[in-house]
Amino acid sequence: MNGSSTRNLYLALIHYPVINKHGDVIASSVTNLDVHDIARAARTYGVRGYYVVTPLADQITLVQRLISHWTNGAGAAYNPQRRLALELVRTRETLADVIAEIGAENTAGGVPRTVVTSARGGRPVIGFAALRRLIDEDRPCLIVFGTAWGLPETLMAAADFALAPIRGPGAYNHLSVRSAATVVLDRLTGR
Amino acid sequence: MNGSSTRNLYLALIHYPVINKHGDVIASSVTNLDVHDIARAARTYGVRGYYVVTPLADQITLVQRLISHWTNGAGAAYNPQRRLALELVRTRETLADVIAEIGAENTAGGVPRTVVTSARGGRPVIGFAALRRLIDEDRPCLIVFGTAWGLPETLMAAADFALAPIRGPGAYNHLSVRSAATVVLDRLTGR
Repeated sequence: MNGSSTRNLYLALIHYPVINKHGDVIASSVTNLDVHDIARAARTYGVRGYYVVTPLADQITLVQRLISHWTNGAGAAYNPQRRLALELVRTRETLADVIAEIGAENTAGGVPRTVVTSARGGRPVIGFAALRRLIDEDRPCLIVFGTAWGLPETLMAAADFALAPIRGPGAYNHLSVRSAATVVLDRLTGR
Repeated sequence: MNGSSTRNLYLALIHYPVINKHGDVIASSVTNLDVHDIARAARTYGVRGYYVVTPLADQITLVQRLISHWTNGAGAAYNPQRRLALELVRTRETLADVIAEIGAENTAGGVPRTVVTSARGGRPVIGFAALRRLIDEDRPCLIVFGTAWGLPETLMAAADFALAPIRGPGAYNHLSVRSAATVVLDRLTGR
């Protein structure tokens, strides 16, 4: 346990590569509320950085303009709480870039463990209680969420862990990525 | 414990009366993603009905068109999972109408207990564990969320219970209502 309210915990929201409803690999569009809602959850639950991952130049420009509005622009004065959330948002072109950057800023802990998330079951998974213990260690941890219909198998297979799907009392589990990211953080770091 | 995966649990999302950042009572606009995200969470966590509460006729028309698209229209064929979520959505003009309707459809359990939610502390609250026990009883339970800057004091004071604010490891708690509603449901009914 590192003892602070912020852990060595990072999030990545992937817009490429993700899959569509037919299983094809696509690039999805960044949506405004994915940036806002997950940034607010990240700040609430003590996350160190929230990466919006897309290789598309126009999408990167859009996110950077959004961040700037809320951290330096009119939005920062209008809603200082939102500034604290949006300050956590970073854009990178690939997941590999994200992993390298987290490793570089954690000289003691090293490269992050990567944990992919999916509503689909059927693979070996790490449970929430076990991951809760891991994120209290010095080594950073990066939790990876997919947009659209989720992360492709290649990316899932390359991760260190796959987190157990979120379940309610029944079989249905089709949360938005905004909701799913918040529940994952609540289960891992909430009081 | 009623033994099914669906409890006598209902949600209401209030668009009037709510307060703005200055504490004035206003009517907020319905947003598309509040309807979708909270409906998906409601279905995932076994909620019986999700009420979008607004007295504004054009807003009611908008929500009913949205529900119709996903339950009967092109959206129902495109994404059947979304249909299952949107089928839970109902529009009513006032919270009093919601309470009366839930009472009428629960002849055994009677009128619902009402539980208001707020990110602001400072009032007597019911904790998540205690509420988790209450919702397993026959009497229905209605959890009330505010849009904009939240529910006015008059509405808070009229409820049976106020739910404890959601906390992460630190002092910051500014989740979107979409995220907050999902976390509340996960804490009350999640596995």
